[in-house]
Amino acid sequence: MTYCVGLLLKAGMVLLSDTRTNAGLDNIATYRKMFTFEEPGERCIVILTAGSLSVTQTTLAQLREGIEHPETEETPSIMQAHTMLDVAEIVGNTLASVRQDIDAKMQASKVSTAASMIVAGQRRGGAMRMFLVYPEGNFIEATEDTPYLQIGEHKYGKPILDRVVTPDTSLDDARKAVLLSMDSTLRSNLSVGMPLDFAVVEKDACRLSRVERIEAENESFRAMSQAWSNALRDGFQKIEI
Amino acid sequence: MTYCVGLLLKAGMVLLSDTRTNAGLDNIATYRKMFTFEEPGERCIVILTAGSLSVTQTTLAQLREGIEHPETEETPSIMQAHTMLDVAEIVGNTLASVRQDIDAKMQASKVSTAASMIVAGQRRGGAMRMFLVYPEGNFIEATEDTPYLQIGEHKYGKPILDRVVTPDTSLDDARKAVLLSMDSTLRSNLSVGMPLDFAVVEKDACRLSRVERIEAENESFRAMSQAWSNALRDGFQKIEI
Repeated sequence: MTYCVGLLLKAGMVLLSDTRTNAGLDNIATYRKMFTFEEPGERCIVILTAGSLSVTQTTLAQLREGIEHPETEETPSIMQAHTMLDVAEIVGNTLASVRQDIDAKMQASKVSTAASMIVAGQRRGGAMRMFLVYPEGNFIEATEDTPYLQIGEHKYGKPILDRVVTPDTSLDDARKAVLLSMDSTLRSNLSVGMPLDFAVVEKDACRLSRVERIEAENESFRAMSQAWSNALRDGFQKIEI
Repeated sequence: MTYCVGLLLKAGMVLLSDTRTNAGLDNIATYRKMFTFEEPGERCIVILTAGSLSVTQTTLAQLREGIEHPETEETPSIMQAHTMLDVAEIVGNTLASVRQDIDAKMQASKVSTAASMIVAGQRRGGAMRMFLVYPEGNFIEATEDTPYLQIGEHKYGKPILDRVVTPDTSLDDARKAVLLSMDSTLRSNLSVGMPLDFAVVEKDACRLSRVERIEAENESFRAMSQAWSNALRDGFQKIEI
């Protein structure tokens, strides 16, 4: 499994993904699930992926092909699409068609080919937008009321987001919130694993403001995880009931 | 959906269930999901249920039938079974056979008839034991390593249990832990709802030491929920990153 989360805030967009993939329980590997596309100052797109690795890899390959060879028109270039809505549509259509192709090959076995993606970005002159693309290619969008989107093992890490994230959350607090949300997921579910990929796209920058890989041995992540455990235990002890 | 949780601690067993049932999203009702069977000082059994309401209700009806008419031997009496393991087997067999019956009627529609149960209890002279009975009738047991069992919407409320519950947790702390675990679930999932049913069976008492229905307007539950929110937000603010 996977856990990926994206926050759409007034100050910018904050994205985090894990890197663990598994085919069954005993075939575990590390694969990047965050993909960035950037023409600094003009356009910046971040895609997070969950689900069947063969489907997400092929989809990304086709999207890259579309960027490199926009003239073929097989897959339109997400770097030339007029709006972020068009980008979401290109990703959704590509994902759905790749899934259909692979499904046809997989019919005999019962392996799931479902995959979903978070697509976040901004083009110059447009607004920041963030979409969750479903396996069928349709999508929903993050809004002020629900300023975050999750894919994969989303339940363990949802309570902390529900409590602390609003559109006014600062980018620093947002980083803390997604890392703690991931920390809860890592603790409760073996199929989500370090290292993590983290990215920030500040409002109207149309470029990656910060990109970071957080390794398992990262001291500050460990310290944060420990401080959060302590804060929870202290809070727990102090509550009267 | 449902959320039920049981803790098996050195000091006793602590159980909590919600009461919301839904057929689709617009047909919501309140049904008890905690059922107690007691011969004080001799035997005490608590059953928590999740899943298809028609399956769990029919299973409970047959178990009660078995207690009232042990001579018929259709369903052996869980109040006369020699061990808690036998009780778990009776519950598992009854659940599986009821499910098969109802499945046969439901084949045309695609409605799920899956249901699971937590069965906790102690008979005089035996140990406290707690089982999770799967829809197929097989079961697993809580142990020192994993002193809690959950059924229904278990993911939202798992992180807090993972952090604070050990076999040495006191019964008061255990009450706090399961209520906070439920609180996280209530906040993140509409299909789990108040009121709650809470029960404690102290070690070797072989009786219900405490039974309580917690209503939506319960002041101390609300205060606890608020205090926990505040503790999380304070803890969150204090963490350096």
